[in-house]
Amino acid sequence: MAVERTLPTSEGRDLLELVRELAVKEVAPRAAEGEENAEFPRDLFALLGRSGLLGLPYPSEYGGGDQPYEVYLQAVEELAGAWLAVGLGLSVHTLSSYPVAAFGSDEQKAHLLPGMLGGDLLGAYCLSEAHSGSDASALSTRARRDASGYTVDGSKSWITHGGRADFYTLFARTGGPGASGISCLYVPASTEGVAADAPERKMGMSASPTAVVRFDGARVGTDALVGEEGAGFAIALSALDSGRLGIAACAVGVAQAALDAAVDYAKERRQFGRPIAEHQGLSFMLADMATKVEAARELYLAAARRRDAGRPFGTQAAMAKLFATDTAMQVATDAVQVHGGYGYTRDFPVERYMREAKVLQIVEGTNQIQRMVIGRALTGAR
Amino acid sequence: MAVERTLPTSEGRDLLELVRELAVKEVAPRAAEGEENAEFPRDLFALLGRSGLLGLPYPSEYGGGDQPYEVYLQAVEELAGAWLAVGLGLSVHTLSSYPVAAFGSDEQKAHLLPGMLGGDLLGAYCLSEAHSGSDASALSTRARRDASGYTVDGSKSWITHGGRADFYTLFARTGGPGASGISCLYVPASTEGVAADAPERKMGMSASPTAVVRFDGARVGTDALVGEEGAGFAIALSALDSGRLGIAACAVGVAQAALDAAVDYAKERRQFGRPIAEHQGLSFMLADMATKVEAARELYLAAARRRDAGRPFGTQAAMAKLFATDTAMQVATDAVQVHGGYGYTRDFPVERYMREAKVLQIVEGTNQIQRMVIGRALTGAR
Amino acid sequence: MAVERTLPTSEGRDLLELVRELAVKEVAPRAAEGEENAEFPRDLFALLGRSGLLGLPYPSEYGGGDQPYEVYLQAVEELAGAWLAVGLGLSVHTLSSYPVAAFGSDEQKAHLLPGMLGGDLLGAYCLSEAHSGSDASALSTRARRDASGYTVDGSKSWITHGGRADFYTLFARTGGPGASGISCLYVPASTEGVAADAPERKMGMSASPTAVVRFDGARVGTDALVGEEGAGFAIALSALDSGRLGIAACAVGVAQAALDAAVDYAKERRQFGRPIAEHQGLSFMLADMATKVEAARELYLAAARRRDAGRPFGTQAAMAKLFATDTAMQVATDAVQVHGGYGYTRDFPVERYMREAKVLQIVEGTNQIQRMVIGRALTGAR
Amino acid sequence: MAVERTLPTSEGRDLLELVRELAVKEVAPRAAEGEENAEFPRDLFALLGRSGLLGLPYPSEYGGGDQPYEVYLQAVEELAGAWLAVGLGLSVHTLSSYPVAAFGSDEQKAHLLPGMLGGDLLGAYCLSEAHSGSDASALSTRARRDASGYTVDGSKSWITHGGRADFYTLFARTGGPGASGISCLYVPASTEGVAADAPERKMGMSASPTAVVRFDGARVGTDALVGEEGAGFAIALSALDSGRLGIAACAVGVAQAALDAAVDYAKERRQFGRPIAEHQGLSFMLADMATKVEAARELYLAAARRRDAGRPFGTQAAMAKLFATDTAMQVATDAVQVHGGYGYTRDFPVERYMREAKVLQIVEGTNQIQRMVIGRALTGAR
Repeated sequence: MAVERTLPTSEGRDLLELVRELAVKEVAPRAAEGEENAEFPRDLFALLGRSGLLGLPYPSEYGGGDQPYEVYLQAVEELAGAWLAVGLGLSVHTLSSYPVAAFGSDEQKAHLLPGMLGGDLLGAYCLSEAHSGSDASALSTRARRDASGYTVDGSKSWITHGGRADFYTLFARTGGPGASGISCLYVPASTEGVAADAPERKMGMSASPTAVVRFDGARVGTDALVGEEGAGFAIALSALDSGRLGIAACAVGVAQAALDAAVDYAKERRQFGRPIAEHQGLSFMLADMATKVEAARELYLAAARRRDAGRPFGTQAAMAKLFATDTAMQVATDAVQVHGGYGYTRDFPVERYMREAKVLQIVEGTNQIQRMVIGRALTGAR
Repeated sequence: MAVERTLPTSEGRDLLELVRELAVKEVAPRAAEGEENAEFPRDLFALLGRSGLLGLPYPSEYGGGDQPYEVYLQAVEELAGAWLAVGLGLSVHTLSSYPVAAFGSDEQKAHLLPGMLGGDLLGAYCLSEAHSGSDASALSTRARRDASGYTVDGSKSWITHGGRADFYTLFARTGGPGASGISCLYVPASTEGVAADAPERKMGMSASPTAVVRFDGARVGTDALVGEEGAGFAIALSALDSGRLGIAACAVGVAQAALDAAVDYAKERRQFGRPIAEHQGLSFMLADMATKVEAARELYLAAARRRDAGRPFGTQAAMAKLFATDTAMQVATDAVQVHGGYGYTRDFPVERYMREAKVLQIVEGTNQIQRMVIGRALTGAR
Repeated sequence: MAVERTLPTSEGRDLLELVRELAVKEVAPRAAEGEENAEFPRDLFALLGRSGLLGLPYPSEYGGGDQPYEVYLQAVEELAGAWLAVGLGLSVHTLSSYPVAAFGSDEQKAHLLPGMLGGDLLGAYCLSEAHSGSDASALSTRARRDASGYTVDGSKSWITHGGRADFYTLFARTGGPGASGISCLYVPASTEGVAADAPERKMGMSASPTAVVRFDGARVGTDALVGEEGAGFAIALSALDSGRLGIAACAVGVAQAALDAAVDYAKERRQFGRPIAEHQGLSFMLADMATKVEAARELYLAAARRRDAGRPFGTQAAMAKLFATDTAMQVATDAVQVHGGYGYTRDFPVERYMREAKVLQIVEGTNQIQRMVIGRALTGAR
Repeated sequence: MAVERTLPTSEGRDLLELVRELAVKEVAPRAAEGEENAEFPRDLFALLGRSGLLGLPYPSEYGGGDQPYEVYLQAVEELAGAWLAVGLGLSVHTLSSYPVAAFGSDEQKAHLLPGMLGGDLLGAYCLSEAHSGSDASALSTRARRDASGYTVDGSKSWITHGGRADFYTLFARTGGPGASGISCLYVPASTEGVAADAPERKMGMSASPTAVVRFDGARVGTDALVGEEGAGFAIALSALDSGRLGIAACAVGVAQAALDAAVDYAKERRQFGRPIAEHQGLSFMLADMATKVEAARELYLAAARRRDAGRPFGTQAAMAKLFATDTAMQVATDAVQVHGGYGYTRDFPVERYMREAKVLQIVEGTNQIQRMVIGRALTGAR
C-alpha cells in the first residue's frame, strides 16, 4: 500500500510516482534473489540515472533534478523499502557526488557531474579506516603532494560499493595531524594502485559490496583536489550531515516495508478463529510500529526542510538518523514476530528487512556517535 | 531556551512570539504556587482572550484568529510548557467551542462565539460518564425534548473546568441507544439544575478542576441544540480528533519544559569534578530525551498540517496523541532523574512536570484507545 | 569467561564443569562453520549421550542423570551459548522424550528410554500444524484406531529435527474435535509412510533442520500410545511448560555469549584514544545488557526450582520464556552494535547470535502466547 | 493477594506470615492518610521492634533475628508494599545499625544494638552531602579529634529520618582528603550542636522525613568511633551494598502493590461490555508488568543468597537495585494507566505508588551510579 505523502510541488509528486513505479516494478522483484546471490544490481543504478533519479538534489545544469531534499529523501525511502541495496546505494552515491557538486571547481563540475548524475559513474565514499571508525579526524591514509599531483598510500575500510564503484571520493591526509591536515580527492577507480579487497561477508546487504579499498602509490593529478587543501574534514562532516538524512530515509523505507508486510500478513493469517489482526495484543503492536514509523518519517522530513531552507540541520539530522534507524530495527524485529515461524524463513521478506535494518544503526556514524553529536548540541559540552 | 520553530507565515511567527512572552512573563511564574494552592487561574484565560489567543483557529469574523492548527497548536505547546493547567485549559476550551464554531447555526455563532473567543465564556466539554469512559457511545445522560426545549438528567465525569466553566458543551441522549441517539447541547453553567461536585483530588493539575457535573432536570431551550439531533456523536468524535492534537501539543510542551530544565541542571551540577552534562551516560540520556521530543513535535505538526489542508487526520492525531504523551511521561521521569534528589523536591519544577505528564496519557482517549483507533485504521478490523 | 553459577549439589557442580568443557572444546569451535554449511551435528548428540548429558532430568534407572531441572537447564544454557543448534536440540530432545518418561508404561520406558537418553535415538516433537500454530487444540492430524494399531494421516509443521530425528513424539486426533480428542503416539522415523519435506530456509539456525513431517497412512501398533487415549493435549501442555524453561535457558545462553563477546570487544577496541569500554555511554549499555541477562537467568532458575519442588510452575515458565527471549533479542542486537561494522560481518559471532535469538521469541509458544498465558493466570479471565 | 514466596526455613515462613499480617492490618490502612498529612509513623517502628522485626539480619544475642538476608529482604518488601515510608524506613534503620553490628566493638554492640533492634533507637545514615551526592569520597564534614573525642562540623543532605532519628551513623573526615580520610561515628541525635532543617518538600514519601542534618561543634567521645579511624569509607561502601538490596526489595514491594491494584481494578472495571482484564491489549500490559516484577524479585533474592553464602554480591546488588527500581517506576506508571482517570486521583493508591517509586531510582546511588558500578565490574575499566 502506497504511503500517502506530502510533497511540496506537483513536480515532486510526479517524481515520487515515477520512483514508486520503478521501485515496485523494477527493484522490489529482484531484491530477494539479488541478496541470496550477492549480485550487485549495477544496472539498476544505470536505470535510475537514465530516469533522472540519480541526481535529484543537484543542479539541472549538470543533469540533476533541482529538487529539495524533502523530495530526494522520499525517493530514497521508496527505493530502500523495495531493496535497501538500491536505496542505500543511491544515498551513498549522492553523498560521494556531494563534494564535487558543493565544493568542486566549475571545471570539475562540468567534467564529472554529468557522469555522476547520469548513471555512468557510480561513486563510493572513502572516509572510514580500520582504526578511525568513529573518530574520523584521526585517519592516516596519506596523499603526498608533488609538482604534478598526489601519491596516495593507505587503506579505507567499510567502503560501500568498494570494488564496484567507478570513482572514490577520498579523504586523505595531505598535511599534519588532526582535522586540518585532511583533504578531499577525486580518485577514479581505474587509477593504478587502487584496488579493493574481497567484500566483507555480512549478515545482510550481501548484494551491496562493502570492502576495504587500498591505495598503493596511486597517482592522481592536482585537479583531483576537491575544495581547498586542508578543507577535507569540513567537507566530510558537511557531507555526513546530508548522508545521515539519507540513512534516516533508508531506515523509514525498510521500516515501512516491514510494517506493510506485517499488516498484510495479520489480515490474512487466522488463529483462534479470526484474523490475528483482530487480536488486540497484536493490533496494539502494529499500532506502536506504525506510530514510530510515522514519527521517524516526519523527523527526517523536518530536518530536510530545514536543510532546504538553508538553516542549520546537523543536530536534526543526527536525531533523524538515530530515531529512524532504531525504529527500523525494532519494527523489523516485530514484523518477523507478527509472522511467527513463517517470518523466520526466507519465504517472506521480513527476515531480510530485519538483517538489513541492523546495518543502518551502524553506518555513517553509529547511533552512539549520533548521541554524542546531539548531546553536545544540547549542553555545549566539550 | 526558546524552541526554534517553523511557522507558515510571519503573522504566525509574531503570534508565537506574543505567546512565548505571555508564557514566560505571566504564566510560568504562577504555576508552582497555583498548583500548590489549587487555584484555578481564571484571570489568565481572560488575559489570553484579551490578547486574541483564545480563538486562534476560529474565524476572525467572531473574534477568532483565522490561524491554521499548525500555529494554534504551537501556542498551546508554549503555554502548556509554562503551566499545563493553562495550556490544557486552552485546548479544552477550544474543544468546547468547536461544535458551535463548526456546526452551529449563524445565530448561535453570532450569539456565542464572541464571548467564547474573547475570554468571557470559559467552556467545558461534557462527554465522559462514569460508566462510559472509553466507550463514549454508551453514554446515558438523557435530554428529553418537549415543545419548548430539553430537560436534561444525568451526570458527566472527569469534566475539566467542571464547576468553573461558564458553559458546558454537553453530549446527551435525545433518542434511542447507540451512537445515533446522541445530540449536542449548549448549556450555560448558570442553568438551574446544573451543578458540579467538589473537584477530584488528583496527583497533579490541582489548579485545573476536574469534577463530576450533574444535570438534574436542567432546562434549556430548543436553541440549545448544536447541529442536528442525533448528530452528537459524530460531532463529538470530530471534535475529539482535534482535541487529541491539543493534548499532543500539551505533551510536547511539558516534555520540552522538562528537557530544558534537565539540560540547564546538567550544565550547572558538578560531580566527579565536572558538570554532569559532560558524563557521557547522562549526555546520552539527554540526547534520547531531546530526540523523542523533536519527533513528537513533528508528528503533531504533520497531523495539524493535514488538518489544515483539509485531509483526513484522525489516525495521525491518534498517533500524535499516543507518541507525544508517552514521550512526555518518559522525558519528565528522566528529567527528575537527571536532577537526582533535588528533582524529587518541590524546589525544582520537574517533579510537577512528571505528575502533570501522567494525566496526558489518560485524557481524551487513553493511550489504549488511541492504539485501538490506529490498529483499526491499519487493518480495517472490526 | 565462565558464569559463576549457583548449583544445589557438588554433583551438579561437577556436571556443569563437564558441560562447560564439552561446550568450549567440542561444540563452540564447530558452530560458525556448521551454520555456514547447514550441517546438522548429529555426532554431538551422540557425544552428549555417551557423556551422560542427554538425560539429565530423567531417572538413572534408564540411563538418566536424576538431576533437578535447576541443573539440567544450566547445562542447556551452556550448550546454547556455545551453539544454539545443540542447546536447543537438547531441549527439544528432552521435550520429545518427556511423554514416555512421565506418562509411558513400564514397558515403554524400558524399551525406549535407554536409547533416548543414551544418544542412539534422537527425538522430535510433532505438535504444531500449519493452521494451528498457536492454537494447538485445533490440530487435524488423524490417527485412526483399529484392532492392531493406528493409521496416521496428516502433516506437522515447524518440526525441529524433522527428517533427522529417529523418532517422532506425535500428537494426533484419535477422537472428536477439541482438546479431549487428542492422543500422544510414539512413531519411529523409519515407519513406512513417514517422511519429511526439505528443511525450511531460515534466517538462522540453518544447522538445525526445521521441516514439515508428513504422515501418509503410517501404521503403528497399539503400543505406540503414550498415556491414555484422549490425554494427549494434557500431556502436550505439561511437556510445553518444561519445554518453555528449556527455551528460556537457551535464550540466556545466547544472551550471555553475546554479552561476553561484547565485553571482550569493548575492552580491546579503542576509539578516541581509549578502549570503548571506558566510554560511559557504551559502558552503561553493557551494564543494562548484563543486568537483563542476570535477571533472565534468575527468573528461569526460580521457575525450575518450583518445578523441582513439585509446585505449579506454568505461569513462571511462561514468564521466564517471555523475559529471557526478549532479553536475548535485545542483548544480541546491542552486542552487534558494540562491535560496530565488525559486528555486522561473519568474522565475529554476534551477528549469528542475533539471527539465532529471533527464533527463540517464536518457538514453543510465541511471546504473544506467553502473554496470554500470564494474563489469564493474573486475572482468571476466559 | 499474597505473593507465593520461597523461604529457606519454616521459621522464615512464619516470620513472613507475621510480617504480612502486620503489613495488612497495621501498616497499609494508615498509609494514605499518613502521607496526606506528612505524619511520620514512629510508633510503627516501635511496633516492629516489639514484634522482633527490626533486627532480622542481626544476632539474636543482641535482640536480632539471626535471619538471612533472603528472609529479611522479603520482610522489607512486604512492608514497603503496604507503606513505603515504613519499608524504606526499616531498610534505612537496618543500614544505620549495620556499622555497629558489623564493625563495632563488643562494648558498642552490647550498649547500642539492643536499643537499635528493639525499636527504642531509630537510626539515620549520614553519608551524602550537598556537593558529594554520587561521589561520596569527596565528603567534607569534618570530625576533629582531640584527647577526649571528636568535634564535628558540617552538614549532611538527603538524610532519611533526619530530625526524627534517635541516632546518626555519621561518615566524617577525620584525616586527609579522599576515601582514606573518612571515619564512621555514632552520634546520638540529642547531642548538642546536632540539628535538622525542616524536611524537604517532596513529590512523595512526605511521611518519611528527608532533611539536612547539621553538625555545629557537636562533641562525641572517642567511643563514638565505629571501626578503625580511616575505615569509614570502606564501611560505608560495604553498608551500601546491603542497603541497595534493601532498596531493591522496597521497589519490588511497591511494584507488586501497584500490580495487585491494577489486576484488581482490571477485573472489576468494565468497558465495551466486559471487564477490561479481558481486553487483550490491557491483559498483555498486565502480563509484562507481572513478568518484570517477578524478575526483579528473583534478582534481589539471588543477590541476597550470595550475600548469605558469604560470596561477593556488590555487582549483583547494583543490578538488583537498578532493575527493581526501574521496574517499580514503569509498573507503577502503568498501574495508573490501567485505572484510567481514577488512577490519577487520590481515591486509589496507585498515584501514590507512582510518586513513591520515583525516589527509589535516586536513593542509595542513582541508577546512573549503579550502571557505573556494573560497567566497571564487567570491563575492569578505571
